[in-house]
Amino acid sequence: MQYNKSMNKRKDTYSVEIGNIKIGSKHPIRVQSMTNTDTSDVDKTVNQIMQLSDAGSELVRVTVNDEKSAKSVEKIKSILLQNNYSVPIVGDFHFNGHRLLSKYPGAASSLDKYRINPGNIGPKDKFDDNFEQIIRIAIENDKPIRIGGNWGSLDKRMMDHLISQKDSNNSSISYSNLMKKCLIDSVLNSAAKAISLGLDKEKIIISCKTSNVNDLIDVYKELSDKCKYPLHLGLTEAGLGRDAIISSVAALSVLINDGIGDTIRVSLTPDDSSLRTEEVEVCQQILSSLGIRNYKPRVISCPGCGRTTNDYFVKLSKSIKSHINNQMPLWKKKFPGVENMGIAVMGCIVNGPGESKHANIGISLPGNNEDPAAPVYVDGKKYKTLHGDNIEQDFIDILQSYIEDTYS
Amino acid sequence: MQYNKSMNKRKDTYSVEIGNIKIGSKHPIRVQSMTNTDTSDVDKTVNQIMQLSDAGSELVRVTVNDEKSAKSVEKIKSILLQNNYSVPIVGDFHFNGHRLLSKYPGAASSLDKYRINPGNIGPKDKFDDNFEQIIRIAIENDKPIRIGGNWGSLDKRMMDHLISQKDSNNSSISYSNLMKKCLIDSVLNSAAKAISLGLDKEKIIISCKTSNVNDLIDVYKELSDKCKYPLHLGLTEAGLGRDAIISSVAALSVLINDGIGDTIRVSLTPDDSSLRTEEVEVCQQILSSLGIRNYKPRVISCPGCGRTTNDYFVKLSKSIKSHINNQMPLWKKKFPGVENMGIAVMGCIVNGPGESKHANIGISLPGNNEDPAAPVYVDGKKYKTLHGDNIEQDFIDILQSYIEDTYS
Repeated sequence: MQYNKSMNKRKDTYSVEIGNIKIGSKHPIRVQSMTNTDTSDVDKTVNQIMQLSDAGSELVRVTVNDEKSAKSVEKIKSILLQNNYSVPIVGDFHFNGHRLLSKYPGAASSLDKYRINPGNIGPKDKFDDNFEQIIRIAIENDKPIRIGGNWGSLDKRMMDHLISQKDSNNSSISYSNLMKKCLIDSVLNSAAKAISLGLDKEKIIISCKTSNVNDLIDVYKELSDKCKYPLHLGLTEAGLGRDAIISSVAALSVLINDGIGDTIRVSLTPDDSSLRTEEVEVCQQILSSLGIRNYKPRVISCPGCGRTTNDYFVKLSKSIKSHINNQMPLWKKKFPGVENMGIAVMGCIVNGPGESKHANIGISLPGNNEDPAAPVYVDGKKYKTLHGDNIEQDFIDILQSYIEDTYS
Repeated sequence: MQYNKSMNKRKDTYSVEIGNIKIGSKHPIRVQSMTNTDTSDVDKTVNQIMQLSDAGSELVRVTVNDEKSAKSVEKIKSILLQNNYSVPIVGDFHFNGHRLLSKYPGAASSLDKYRINPGNIGPKDKFDDNFEQIIRIAIENDKPIRIGGNWGSLDKRMMDHLISQKDSNNSSISYSNLMKKCLIDSVLNSAAKAISLGLDKEKIIISCKTSNVNDLIDVYKELSDKCKYPLHLGLTEAGLGRDAIISSVAALSVLINDGIGDTIRVSLTPDDSSLRTEEVEVCQQILSSLGIRNYKPRVISCPGCGRTTNDYFVKLSKSIKSHINNQMPLWKKKFPGVENMGIAVMGCIVNGPGESKHANIGISLPGNNEDPAAPVYVDGKKYKTLHGDNIEQDFIDILQSYIEDTYS
């Protein structure tokens, strides 16, 4: 696997087993996602979990917010298993997790992990009891937990404590840094408390999400210095569409490049034009961009300029991408390694032949006023020159034979 | 301006003047773009430059690939100036730059910068003459240059030299590292040669683009250690759509977070469904995600889950985003500072009130089974609670008054 020279080694973290997968620095960075169906609607939820799993989500989280949802969880898990979907299912609990997990032992035993939020465990005077109740159930069921803080739901008891400390010390710490400290201290203290109640240290995953990229980077760097629990990365409430994708990628890339992060989620506000699986695809593309894990062949193509007013290279590049997307489910089974392939579709002589030679297969289409000929390069060597109306099919044929010859 | 604690300080670079702007570490990171119209089509090119400039492109590059394009450049610049578009125009030259700039002094004098590529200066035996010719013209016209290497067009003379060196030293350097070295050496040697010909060192900008994120990070880290020329960042041939955006953001975020980069471009293969201005917007969103420069108020909204099967928060979040986009041209003039604002539109009680309090203005909509009431927070304090069918307009009215009160 190709890393950049300056990329830091993965920070050392424990291995935590969740269902049939492990999370931690000895294992690949895991992609995960969360459903947005009503968990009490078993069919809809099962379907979305299957879609997310098919897209490559290695864990799927569902909210367990009320009795109906808690009742459904066991059924959801069992239908999934009947259909050979062994993807671990994580229950997301806020406010009433202790009650739901106690009342519905079927939920407690069928979920593969419980996510709890120290900011939403209950009112201040109930925190300790509620927390202890959840941890006892995790221990009895031999389940791991995620202690997931979020700056949108700070632990009020911890915040009060920090503010009174600040006042009595006349400290000049800013409100923003106080919040970061609150977030970090509350998850680490909760982890320590869980361990003191008997939970194994290798049963804990940590997250501290903020909606601001810079805060997130600061918080995770500090977390990574302070503990060896595997870290779940994600920018919370990133927002809609392209802007949300960009902010998430910026935050996660900086952290992953620094060796931080054992599992990632990208949170996108749903859009009519996109499927829930988009969050899985974005995670995969981050890992693949950074050379960490590849999921499908990569199409390298140029942005075009005044040299390429004929947009044939754009059309070809799109056809190749959609060909890959259509074939990938089959290729994944038949041609292991095909996901590491690079295919260049270039628009003119400026960088066309050079970029095509760097790729496994490349084609350099003619720019304005160039000869109407398209040289094809295979493994860095000129293979043949295509002409005429059939270039697309000819190139796809060359691609297909290359894949069969190379990855069978 | 908010930076994360671990973000490196901008690496110190010279100041280079290009038309009416300056690029270098003493100045903001500049956003730039490139047209894809035929440069000899004056009207189309002028229109696209205006669009890119309106979108926020602080420099615009055009290809100058033949005599017709070279002839058009002077006209393009003069129409732009007549229309009060002072955005600097950069000419992109490959293979015949020396001839075009000599034959068309109007182009040489009206362009604000020349981009040359040491891999495409001409055949090996003509390199020195062609290069010298261009540098003399730059000096006569008092113009800066960008020496822009690209791994799709490596300098063949340099590559031959490095390969023979490798052979004679029996060096075990990998082909991939040899290419990176070639890219870096060829731009730095070209810069040294330009200076020896009399070009001021504060007239040079450098780039070395690759299509692979990790290579790009390696190459720019080394460039940044080796020189003080301002660096133009960009992932070349990033490809189509969302994947190209993600790869570009990953590469640029890591570098910018490390203090590297004085001007940025994102190269996207054009798509029917997107405008050329998309590359400008992506650049802006990278800078804004990293807390470096803001361009418009930010909408924070959650990804939804099984608690928010009613998708009203998605609709409201979209309306607010489109309201911002529609109003921004006006707001930019009337309300300086409005671009730093944060607006939260949240879907349920889990993080809704907390995230809303962190924003300048926030609204926390009810999730499933919650009270049908939407508390609005202004500067961290509860302001009022909205009910009924008119929440969207009521919230926009509160937003509008806040902006008028705060940024007038």
